[in-house]
Amino acid sequence: MKKYVPINSYETARFCEVRTFCRLPYEKKTEGVDFAVIGIPFDGGCGFQTGSRLGPASIRNMSGLLRGSDIYLGVNQFEYVTGVDYGDVPVVPFSIESTYKKVEDTLTPIVKNGVIPICMGGDHSITLPELRALAKVHGPLALVQFDSHLDVSDAYLGEKYNHGSMFLRGVEEGIIDTEHSIQVGIRAIYGVEDIKDSERLGYKVITADEAIELGPEKLGQIIKERVGNQKAFLTFDIDFVDPAYAPGTGTIEIGGYTSRDALIAVRQLHEINFVGFDLVEVLPALDPANITAYLAAKIMSEFISNIVYKKMK
Amino acid sequence: MKKYVPINSYETARFCEVRTFCRLPYEKKTEGVDFAVIGIPFDGGCGFQTGSRLGPASIRNMSGLLRGSDIYLGVNQFEYVTGVDYGDVPVVPFSIESTYKKVEDTLTPIVKNGVIPICMGGDHSITLPELRALAKVHGPLALVQFDSHLDVSDAYLGEKYNHGSMFLRGVEEGIIDTEHSIQVGIRAIYGVEDIKDSERLGYKVITADEAIELGPEKLGQIIKERVGNQKAFLTFDIDFVDPAYAPGTGTIEIGGYTSRDALIAVRQLHEINFVGFDLVEVLPALDPANITAYLAAKIMSEFISNIVYKKMK
Amino acid sequence: MKKYVPINSYETARFCEVRTFCRLPYEKKTEGVDFAVIGIPFDGGCGFQTGSRLGPASIRNMSGLLRGSDIYLGVNQFEYVTGVDYGDVPVVPFSIESTYKKVEDTLTPIVKNGVIPICMGGDHSITLPELRALAKVHGPLALVQFDSHLDVSDAYLGEKYNHGSMFLRGVEEGIIDTEHSIQVGIRAIYGVEDIKDSERLGYKVITADEAIELGPEKLGQIIKERVGNQKAFLTFDIDFVDPAYAPGTGTIEIGGYTSRDALIAVRQLHEINFVGFDLVEVLPALDPANITAYLAAKIMSEFISNIVYKKMK
Amino acid sequence: MKKYVPINSYETARFCEVRTFCRLPYEKKTEGVDFAVIGIPFDGGCGFQTGSRLGPASIRNMSGLLRGSDIYLGVNQFEYVTGVDYGDVPVVPFSIESTYKKVEDTLTPIVKNGVIPICMGGDHSITLPELRALAKVHGPLALVQFDSHLDVSDAYLGEKYNHGSMFLRGVEEGIIDTEHSIQVGIRAIYGVEDIKDSERLGYKVITADEAIELGPEKLGQIIKERVGNQKAFLTFDIDFVDPAYAPGTGTIEIGGYTSRDALIAVRQLHEINFVGFDLVEVLPALDPANITAYLAAKIMSEFISNIVYKKMK
Amino acid sequence: MKKYVPINSYETARFCEVRTFCRLPYEKKTEGVDFAVIGIPFDGGCGFQTGSRLGPASIRNMSGLLRGSDIYLGVNQFEYVTGVDYGDVPVVPFSIESTYKKVEDTLTPIVKNGVIPICMGGDHSITLPELRALAKVHGPLALVQFDSHLDVSDAYLGEKYNHGSMFLRGVEEGIIDTEHSIQVGIRAIYGVEDIKDSERLGYKVITADEAIELGPEKLGQIIKERVGNQKAFLTFDIDFVDPAYAPGTGTIEIGGYTSRDALIAVRQLHEINFVGFDLVEVLPALDPANITAYLAAKIMSEFISNIVYKKMK
Amino acid sequence: MKKYVPINSYETARFCEVRTFCRLPYEKKTEGVDFAVIGIPFDGGCGFQTGSRLGPASIRNMSGLLRGSDIYLGVNQFEYVTGVDYGDVPVVPFSIESTYKKVEDTLTPIVKNGVIPICMGGDHSITLPELRALAKVHGPLALVQFDSHLDVSDAYLGEKYNHGSMFLRGVEEGIIDTEHSIQVGIRAIYGVEDIKDSERLGYKVITADEAIELGPEKLGQIIKERVGNQKAFLTFDIDFVDPAYAPGTGTIEIGGYTSRDALIAVRQLHEINFVGFDLVEVLPALDPANITAYLAAKIMSEFISNIVYKKMK
Repeated sequence: MKKYVPINSYETARFCEVRTFCRLPYEKKTEGVDFAVIGIPFDGGCGFQTGSRLGPASIRNMSGLLRGSDIYLGVNQFEYVTGVDYGDVPVVPFSIESTYKKVEDTLTPIVKNGVIPICMGGDHSITLPELRALAKVHGPLALVQFDSHLDVSDAYLGEKYNHGSMFLRGVEEGIIDTEHSIQVGIRAIYGVEDIKDSERLGYKVITADEAIELGPEKLGQIIKERVGNQKAFLTFDIDFVDPAYAPGTGTIEIGGYTSRDALIAVRQLHEINFVGFDLVEVLPALDPANITAYLAAKIMSEFISNIVYKKMK
Repeated sequence: MKKYVPINSYETARFCEVRTFCRLPYEKKTEGVDFAVIGIPFDGGCGFQTGSRLGPASIRNMSGLLRGSDIYLGVNQFEYVTGVDYGDVPVVPFSIESTYKKVEDTLTPIVKNGVIPICMGGDHSITLPELRALAKVHGPLALVQFDSHLDVSDAYLGEKYNHGSMFLRGVEEGIIDTEHSIQVGIRAIYGVEDIKDSERLGYKVITADEAIELGPEKLGQIIKERVGNQKAFLTFDIDFVDPAYAPGTGTIEIGGYTSRDALIAVRQLHEINFVGFDLVEVLPALDPANITAYLAAKIMSEFISNIVYKKMK
Repeated sequence: MKKYVPINSYETARFCEVRTFCRLPYEKKTEGVDFAVIGIPFDGGCGFQTGSRLGPASIRNMSGLLRGSDIYLGVNQFEYVTGVDYGDVPVVPFSIESTYKKVEDTLTPIVKNGVIPICMGGDHSITLPELRALAKVHGPLALVQFDSHLDVSDAYLGEKYNHGSMFLRGVEEGIIDTEHSIQVGIRAIYGVEDIKDSERLGYKVITADEAIELGPEKLGQIIKERVGNQKAFLTFDIDFVDPAYAPGTGTIEIGGYTSRDALIAVRQLHEINFVGFDLVEVLPALDPANITAYLAAKIMSEFISNIVYKKMK
Repeated sequence: MKKYVPINSYETARFCEVRTFCRLPYEKKTEGVDFAVIGIPFDGGCGFQTGSRLGPASIRNMSGLLRGSDIYLGVNQFEYVTGVDYGDVPVVPFSIESTYKKVEDTLTPIVKNGVIPICMGGDHSITLPELRALAKVHGPLALVQFDSHLDVSDAYLGEKYNHGSMFLRGVEEGIIDTEHSIQVGIRAIYGVEDIKDSERLGYKVITADEAIELGPEKLGQIIKERVGNQKAFLTFDIDFVDPAYAPGTGTIEIGGYTSRDALIAVRQLHEINFVGFDLVEVLPALDPANITAYLAAKIMSEFISNIVYKKMK
Repeated sequence: MKKYVPINSYETARFCEVRTFCRLPYEKKTEGVDFAVIGIPFDGGCGFQTGSRLGPASIRNMSGLLRGSDIYLGVNQFEYVTGVDYGDVPVVPFSIESTYKKVEDTLTPIVKNGVIPICMGGDHSITLPELRALAKVHGPLALVQFDSHLDVSDAYLGEKYNHGSMFLRGVEEGIIDTEHSIQVGIRAIYGVEDIKDSERLGYKVITADEAIELGPEKLGQIIKERVGNQKAFLTFDIDFVDPAYAPGTGTIEIGGYTSRDALIAVRQLHEINFVGFDLVEVLPALDPANITAYLAAKIMSEFISNIVYKKMK
Repeated sequence: MKKYVPINSYETARFCEVRTFCRLPYEKKTEGVDFAVIGIPFDGGCGFQTGSRLGPASIRNMSGLLRGSDIYLGVNQFEYVTGVDYGDVPVVPFSIESTYKKVEDTLTPIVKNGVIPICMGGDHSITLPELRALAKVHGPLALVQFDSHLDVSDAYLGEKYNHGSMFLRGVEEGIIDTEHSIQVGIRAIYGVEDIKDSERLGYKVITADEAIELGPEKLGQIIKERVGNQKAFLTFDIDFVDPAYAPGTGTIEIGGYTSRDALIAVRQLHEINFVGFDLVEVLPALDPANITAYLAAKIMSEFISNIVYKKMK
């Protein structure tokens, strides 16, 4: 039996065992694996409802339902890839700066090992130090952002670092290549000028209305064209999805994709050269039936298929 | 800084301060404002699950997420209009008649002042005294009703006043101009003859199936044509929306609009001359992720854009 | 007043009285009725989240909202049919085999009486003994299965009987006529070969993606053609529906029908000669706003219209 | 097997069957029974959090755990008494006066038959019409009230009838014999003069602090002495009990009895000649673990032991 | 009618109106009042479950049940004192240091005005800047701390400021007079040496076991003796109380006082010269029946009686 | 740093990392450890509310709050003992017999290694195969049972194995030495003869009333005297504790110990020679604030102190 693959659910029931992502081994090492799932349970960057620090635990719980089969690729994922649940970054809930350092320090050796990090938030503020770690190895990255918010505010409540400013900071730090970057699903706008602010930074912006009009296949096509051959990072804020499908998040916004269309959209991106991924803003206290946590797990699994796709070739 | 506008969310976080609608000032006066938001926390008219008396509190909580920007009009709302949270009508939970008097007494001076009331239920029974107050000033009104129920029953459980009879009572009282009125989204029918009963009263009825077939833009067009230049009242029962998008209400019915389409439909009505509005039947005990309360706030905000639209001209 | 019809909700409020399905009489006899609603509160066959033993109680609670009118047929159902709430099968939570015997023993005399059983789960494992009871009278049945899972596993965790194996067992037992059977909505696949396994057994399989592509009317047409004039059984696993619309179930899967489309699909099947029905896998602990339980009641009511349709002719 | 006794839980699991109180037969007749359990799902008299109309359904659900054995009397209850679940009074949620009439009309023939009514609220306002029905047969009754509130307000929010005024109204109507009546557990006082107001009406008042100081046995003794040989009515507002033990009620108050002491106190009252009983103010939406509903069922069962005790002699 | 007193609940129902503490006026000024209630919705200092930023909103909601009568003093509080709900400190969720500054800046003028601040957390970290503001006017304060934790850790996760370190920091800053300070209810100990650490700082420590042994009256006596005539600050961490009585908090610990005994203990302290107060760590997401929020409101009301007591003299 | 001890919570926050019991290493080996924590997530033996299969996950979540310090022994536990979280037994939810075999097979080598198993249910039925595994090595064991139920029924619903029969079966199998066994906290009696049935088997029975009368210290003394020097097993059904303190369990019963007294009682038993332990019947769906899960973790920690005590000597 191959190492670093999920527990066999025909032998051990899905509700058994210590909860790791997709029932993968819990290991603090990454030799010989393709990807590492890493929890970043930090919610000190959020500006409305808090509690996403429990997001990784809830995603792990529900990820027991994942099956490792991809009917679109026609393969069982773990015949092509291996992975571990690396556990969590030891975040510092009292300090976003200290947390940023811990995230960067944890990810750097993993990225240097050639392992793809699949991170689970936590609030969206955690993406910045992920990008820092990745850019050290890969240089500036194309950003593919599924989100209802732009997150390019300068100072919010007088502070530079929070879950609404990362994609301005990343530009300032030179770690985002905005020319190949795209923000999709945008609909929670603070002022009518906000989209133009983002475009001035170089981002391409597709609003939720536009994305719905396009449908997930064409949206995927546009994203692929935007990114081209650049090394890229996929950041998926669960509030991209409509609240009916993803109620468990802190700053919901009406009018997003269905969860099915979100999965279809991500599925279009197999050819993009992603070097990292995160799924953020799952807030279990607002997710009584766990449908948001399971959706998060499915999107993560869809990203794993992205890695599988490349290994199949 | 202009008075009677929301607290600045860049200075004071959205979860701070005493909860008023859209972070507007809490004032028991209406001089110099365009609209007044008024809670009517009465649920003594409801025939199934109760608890909508806590609706206004929950909508106020979630309305902290509203941003005051309208990307469709391309303006920030509060550059054009002002408003207050007037607080609640001192309803009498033990008596629908006493409550009706309180509602009418509270609204009458506001309406006379030329201020548009934006009411939050409570159950749907509260619309009748609102109409009474408005009709005293404006005469019989065209009714635009988004709802899954017709609410034209005569006596229910032997009583004339309840949340299923207002739009018969309003006709009997001569305060609804049914020739320019329309009921849309209807799907919870008690007997197969019910729609004809409503049509006999003069209402135009559009079932949920028809409304979905039409789509929100055409639905909006039909409503506008029906109302014409009449002074009108917009009553939005949150159960118009499908339970997946609005679970938090007492008498759900399968097969409604998505929340996005509901917002689009309301957005079509800018040219209608609305003199009043209410949003009813939000029931927080059935709304664990607060998505229904936030949707209610969004619909109310969309109605504010209706006022904005007129001021822009 | 006709016997075996619901309590009149104009006289007794919907939240009053001991909870029976659709407010029908609670009777342990079936003389003179067209159908009997039977709870089968067993959840000992489920492999992930448990608690569907409380499904029947929750469906009964919410079924008070049913109105007995069918606007599509244009009739009030109980002018054509009668029914009882027969109560529950005395299941044995500690033993699936003992429970199977209880189900079969309870249903057999009802079926022999010519009464159509409308069963409420409990988990999906209960369908097997229902089919056994029906097949004794009617012979092998065409199976119409709405589900996100195939449920044709052989042994799961080493056991033959569970909520993932019934439709293999039924074939082995010769009580399912797979040539006229169809599985629709399939999307939670354990291995990429699974669908072929089901097809080898003779089932026609329509995946969720295909079903969404087709739309509910064409899906209904395909089902009708598949079944033809065979006596048939309709089994509806609530996880066929997307989790946004039916969160309250134990093994959710993203990407199903909306609840409205599910109702439309069932409505197409009036001409099929169904001799039995069940609705399974409602799990109240994951259904905080009761929208899943109410959807279940609506689907059951739609099935009652199937019986009504035949009586109208 | 004796009629009108609970379903045998060794043969039919506790979670099976349509939910009746204590698994008793659901019958709208009272010939040959000692007591009838009657739901009164009215919450239109409550002044804070609403939803107690679902109290009877929740108590019925949890009462499946009752076992019919009384280890203090050393007997199995249903070897001595019989009873039915009579279902609910068809209350009118829109009108307290109409509801009062329905309660009185429903109870009167039951009481005339010599059957003891055991009522489940709903809010406390329902006790007044119960007393009216009983007083017609038995004359003015001694009231034994377990409660954190006095409920002797005159008009509240301008209305005479509500859940805070019944025990003034009952005195005015001459149906309460205050000389033999007692209010115990009082602690939620609106003004410091309130207790004296109650005493002026003739009630003996024991505050929660006094009751805790006394302990349940001595409290029982005092109650017995107060009532003497008078025909009496026991009204138990679940908010008598501390919120830790009974969170599911609309107007909690800190500092009550534990649930165990409450049961001990009721158990002391076997010699009192109770002709009726009610248990009120259970609010399921605030009772997530159902401990309040089960406590209510236990207190009702303890009252049944009161009837048993007399039959044993 | 006196200004700055609660809305009359005989005229306006308790569930009506915008939620302020105890239905007091919402005013950002403190002239002519005895106390100001101030929310400090910061939870960025907490080390386990987060969400106490919503504490003030929940306490305000439930405080509508407060009645302003004190049966122990025999007076109605608002015949002696006045107060306002000052709203919230504009905390900065992303930075504990920035928040500390906001708290200090907000409180300083209030304290200078001679108004007693009654603060609602938020997590316990907020007490430090409250003490800073108070010490500027009053000098070092005696601390009376009800808590299950000592909160004298040095660095936690490498950070100086968090909800476990304030009472070490306060000593270091010279704003706590430990010789007259006392920590009561301690039971969640990280290492067996911790209590000695606290004692070395000068605190008197009473464990939960000792406090239960003593009972609330004697505990109160000991506290009074410890504090003497010093100006003092009362900080009440709701986790002092046992989880059965106060489940809604982030770091529960078994084995605390009942809520009734907690109220009795606070009631003993009337003679202490308190110049400020806070109630912290209420976490609404873990408080489904709101009993913790109401307990918090009651403790705050008990503190108001402390002010009343002095005015009565 | 010693192996097999918890993660240091001063370095890694308590809400970080994959959830293991008490933050111990997750290892499927037991060389060099004193105890192994083992989840047994089986709930197929329960007769009322189900869902305890999620008990181990919930206990692991909350056990992050444990601190490893024992202020009564005056030591930090992990200076004396080591342990692992062994993960879960691969239970078979569809078959109690198959599950029994898995439990026995999993525990046998652990017990043979001289490692003490600390098991987490799951429902109480799992204790029987634990005893089987232990008796193979240790011979018949003295049983110390904290419970509200006797669990000595013969057949329930016609089945021999379920959560109400283990302690009759264990006697029949000769693996319980009833002469040194004791059942404490009993109060949920099915028939008045039940206690005598248990005594006839040789058990000593102490009812909840007797246990409360005795208090935890004397109760502990009696237990110690009963067991003497026999090798013993401690089984703790969380429903021993009163529902106010432990709401999250499937068959609550009013009138148990407080959680504090439960801990004190267990603490008295240090001198008993326990060779195994389990904590059963935690049901997270009924435990919204997780206080039951945390209590379970505390009781388990108290049992660890029992092991510590012996190592200290």
